[in-house]
Formats: sequence, structure tokens, C-alpha cells
Amino acid sequence: MERWVGVAHTGFVLAGVCAFAVSGALQAVQKRMDVVGLASLAVVTALGGGLLRDLLIGAVPPAALTDGWLLVGALLGAAVVFLAHGRVRLPRRPMLVFDAIGLGLFCVEGTIKGLAFGLDPYAAAVVGTLTGVGGGVVRDVLSSEVPSVFRQGSRLYVVPALAGASVTAGLATSMWWSVWASVLVAGSVSAVRIASLRFHWKAIAPRDTPTA
Amino acid sequence: MERWVGVAHTGFVLAGVCAFAVSGALQAVQKRMDVVGLASLAVVTALGGGLLRDLLIGAVPPAALTDGWLLVGALLGAAVVFLAHGRVRLPRRPMLVFDAIGLGLFCVEGTIKGLAFGLDPYAAAVVGTLTGVGGGVVRDVLSSEVPSVFRQGSRLYVVPALAGASVTAGLATSMWWSVWASVLVAGSVSAVRIASLRFHWKAIAPRDTPTA
Amino acid sequence: MERWVGVAHTGFVLAGVCAFAVSGALQAVQKRMDVVGLASLAVVTALGGGLLRDLLIGAVPPAALTDGWLLVGALLGAAVVFLAHGRVRLPRRPMLVFDAIGLGLFCVEGTIKGLAFGLDPYAAAVVGTLTGVGGGVVRDVLSSEVPSVFRQGSRLYVVPALAGASVTAGLATSMWWSVWASVLVAGSVSAVRIASLRFHWKAIAPRDTPTA
Repeated sequence: MERWVGVAHTGFVLAGVCAFAVSGALQAVQKRMDVVGLASLAVVTALGGGLLRDLLIGAVPPAALTDGWLLVGALLGAAVVFLAHGRVRLPRRPMLVFDAIGLGLFCVEGTIKGLAFGLDPYAAAVVGTLTGVGGGVVRDVLSSEVPSVFRQGSRLYVVPALAGASVTAGLATSMWWSVWASVLVAGSVSAVRIASLRFHWKAIAPRDTPTA
Repeated sequence: MERWVGVAHTGFVLAGVCAFAVSGALQAVQKRMDVVGLASLAVVTALGGGLLRDLLIGAVPPAALTDGWLLVGALLGAAVVFLAHGRVRLPRRPMLVFDAIGLGLFCVEGTIKGLAFGLDPYAAAVVGTLTGVGGGVVRDVLSSEVPSVFRQGSRLYVVPALAGASVTAGLATSMWWSVWASVLVAGSVSAVRIASLRFHWKAIAPRDTPTA
Repeated sequence: MERWVGVAHTGFVLAGVCAFAVSGALQAVQKRMDVVGLASLAVVTALGGGLLRDLLIGAVPPAALTDGWLLVGALLGAAVVFLAHGRVRLPRRPMLVFDAIGLGLFCVEGTIKGLAFGLDPYAAAVVGTLTGVGGGVVRDVLSSEVPSVFRQGSRLYVVPALAGASVTAGLATSMWWSVWASVLVAGSVSAVRIASLRFHWKAIAPRDTPTA
């Protein structure tokens, strides 16, 4: 059975990496980039969160440079967008679902890697959250945009990631933790993200008053 | 007496971190971010300079992830802005003074940490300057703005930090150095920063000619 | 003869660093920065690619902070722009040639450093490419611009760097490799870059259709 867990895990990671890469590549298209920018933005969006995590915890060279199939997955996402753009309309919903799966998975795994490198639980939760959301932030910075996850009106993204990372950081060293617990937490993060898209959940914003 | 030095030091660090966080949170409000963006920008502005320093000198995990009260101070600054915005007007002057105190303190301490990690004095001065000014630069990059400390007409900020860091790098390994010397240097940096606000001191700019 | 190789090498590195710095300083002028922004952008453009490489491979402190003459070269480029701006017109062509020389040199040397730090060939090629093109990307991010090397219509820059880095990564551990091979590869990268300016070579772009 362990083998099936491993296969399922690899499948989910690849789906997440691919979905992140697609979001980077689509942004590149909107910003009128060429194929170089499209591939670069796809790779950076897909691998940027884990890369920031690895730099912060001192895991160098980062997984982005040692696990070659992550790069392959990211380039696959880039290729799909490049070939499909202007020909077929990419289905929006499956991409958002895969993106949510990636968010849940990466924030849980990032937290556990942080703990494994000796971080305190609160710091591991920060690093885990960054693993999930960092790629999208880097994507927006490289597109000269205010990060979408920070904008008023944006649907919940950082909040479920932070909650999932915090639960993971709190439980991962306890006797309660198991593969199934991690699946449950990651799945909950994904579910809250998808629900927030469906039901227009947003984080609160500062009071809306005219500012100078 | 040493105890009082320690208490005073902690107080000044917290005041500086809080003031940096407030500047990040205010920028987030202006950029119409939600509470997630506000808290993120506050934390990154407050801790970003030290974080860049620690990555450059190889002090991982960085202090931002090991000294939890730095994060608490940053979130406190974020909370103040979030609660006050649209209700009470935050007093501008004390914030600028605390920000100047943070600038002086962080550039001196960043330089000393750089030296402790084996950097040459010139490199320690660069890293110390970055400790003081880096958070504000990251704040502006994450807000899709040209860094304010680089703009023509901006009041002196990097210049006093670089001067203070250079003096620290030059003297810190000599017999002249003491706690009081570091207080003097940090205080001078803060004073020059405040004076440049008061008296509109600016760095020179390239000649103003029409460019292509 | 080895001594002449060393002298020539240092000369080319300095020419490349200086040209990168000039491109950063010119961008600072266009963005209406003061002398602080001009010097900062020059330094970051000149040293940013190598700095990112060193962070990724764990070579801390990075060469940018240990090889002081790199910083001197970058500041020299900044000084030239600052003094010349509005007085004399900087000759555009030599600068583009020196920039191309830097691109070729840095992507080859970055790849070899990556291999020396134990990266797989494909990862070393990525890191080598980043060494050549990273500084310009950081420059554009700090100027709140979409990176020029990603834009549609931009002349080839990343493509020759990636090709040169890949050839280097493939051959550097073989018996075919020598100083002359590295000169040949770096020179070819520079030549392709210059030819792409001369003959308007561009990377392909996604199909041009109206997007939402």
C-alpha cells in the first residue's frame, strides 16, 4: 500500500506544480512576454515557494535544482499554455482545483521540511505558508503587479495555507500525526480555497476611507 | 547597569521594528490591500533587511525565524495600523522618529553581525546598510513601486546608514569600540536622518536633461 | 602564457561588470532616481546574477561581498554614467558589446561554479544562465518594470546564455574541455547576442489574440 501512497503523492505534486506553472504562463501571456518570459515565469511560479523555503532554512542547493522532475513538470505547464493559447480555451475550473491541491500539499510539506531543519513550530508554519503562496507572489513581482493574494477582494489563499501550516506545525511532532492526518490537513486547505472561490470568501480589509 | 543596557536595547529594537512595520502597513493601505497583504507587508518591511543580511552572510535560519518577538513586534505594528485606519489619525512624527531609531540601530548591529561572520569591513558595511534600508526596498518592490529611497527628491536615508555602517566597520575591531560608541554612531545616524527630514536634505541627482 | 590568460580574464570580467553597471545606472536615470538609486541599481545589476547563483549553490558569503574589485568595477560604471549624463552622449555600441561579453563570460563561469558546488549538469546550466541574465532581471524588478529580457520583441539574451551554459555543463567534465573551449563557448554566446541585436533576432511569442 505504501507504494500507492508514493505514486499518489507524486501525482498530486506534479498536478500542483503544473497548475502553478500554468498560472505563471498565463500571466506571462497577459503581460505580452515572449516564450522566454513565459517559460521563466512558469518555472518561477511553480518552484518559487519551495525555493524561498529552502533558502530560508539553509537547504541548499534547493529542491528546485536537485529534483529535476519538478522542473519538467513546470516546463510541461508552460508548454501547455504556449501551445494552447489562441487555439483552444484552457478549462479554468480544473486548473483552479489543481492549484488548490498544490496549495494544500505544499504548505503541509513545507511546514514538515521546516520542522525537519530545526525550526520552531511557529517559524515552520511561516515557512510552510511561504512554500504554498511564495511562487504566486514572485510571479506577480516579476510581472510588475501588486501580489494578487494581497489585494482587497481577492479570495482566501494565504489564510487557509497559514491555517493548514499551523495545524501541521502543531501536530506533526505529536503521536496524532500520520500520512492520513497530512492528507486530511492538505485536503482541508484545498477545500477551503475552493469554497472561497465558489462562495466569494474574502479576508477583511482596512476601513475604506479616502487616503492621502 | 548591564541589565539596563539590555532592557533599553530591547526597547529600541522593538520601537524600530514596530515603526518599520507601520510604514509597511500604511503602504499596504494605500495600495488597497486586504488584512493579509497588510500583515505580510508589515512583517516583510520590518524583518526584510535583517533577513537579506542573514541570507548573504549564511546565518540560516535567519533571526526573523528564530527570534519570535521580532515577528510579534512586526505584527503589533500591523495591528495598530489596521485598527487605527479610518478611525484615528496616526501621529506622523513619532513614527518617523522611531523609524530613524530603527535605521541607526539596525545598520550598526547589522555591520557588527557581518563582521562576526567573517566579512571584510567594506562588505560588513554594505551588509549593515542593507540591514537598515533593505526592508523598505522590499516593501516597495512588493507594492510595485520604485523604491522610495532611490527616488530623486527623497530625504537622506541610505546615506546616513552607509556612513554609520562604515564607521562601525572601521572601528568595531579597534580598542575604541564600546557599547557607548555604538550608541553614539547609531544615534548620529538617526539624528542625520531626522535632520534631513526637517531641513529637506537630499542626495544629488543626475543632471536633469531630456532623455530618450 | 598563463599569466596573460589571467590578465585577459580579469580585463573581460571588469568590462562585463562595468557594462552591466552602466545598464543599471542608465535605467536609474530614466526612472528619475538620485545618486543613491543610481549607484545601487548599478551595483545590483552588475553583481545580482552572481549573487543569486551564490545563494542558490550555498557559496556564502557571495563573491559580490568577497571580491572587492567587482564592487569597484560596478561603482566605476555608475560613476561614468553619473558624470557623463547630460554632458556627453555615451557611445551605445561599445556598451552593448561589453554587455554581450559579460553575458558570455558570466554564463560560462557561473555554470562551472555550479558544477564545482556539486550541481547536476542541468541545474548547473540553469544557474549559469541565471548568472548571466539575473542582474538585468533584478534591475528591472527594482525599477518596477517587467523584465526586458522577457518581453515580446526583445532581442535574444536568455537563449544564447542558456545554450552556452548547457554546452558548458555538458562538456566541462569531459576531456574536451580547456581554457580555449571556454573562450570559444563564451565568445559564441557573445556573438549570437550581438548578431541578434544586429539582425533583430527574437524568440517566438504566444499567438497574438485578444485576451481578457
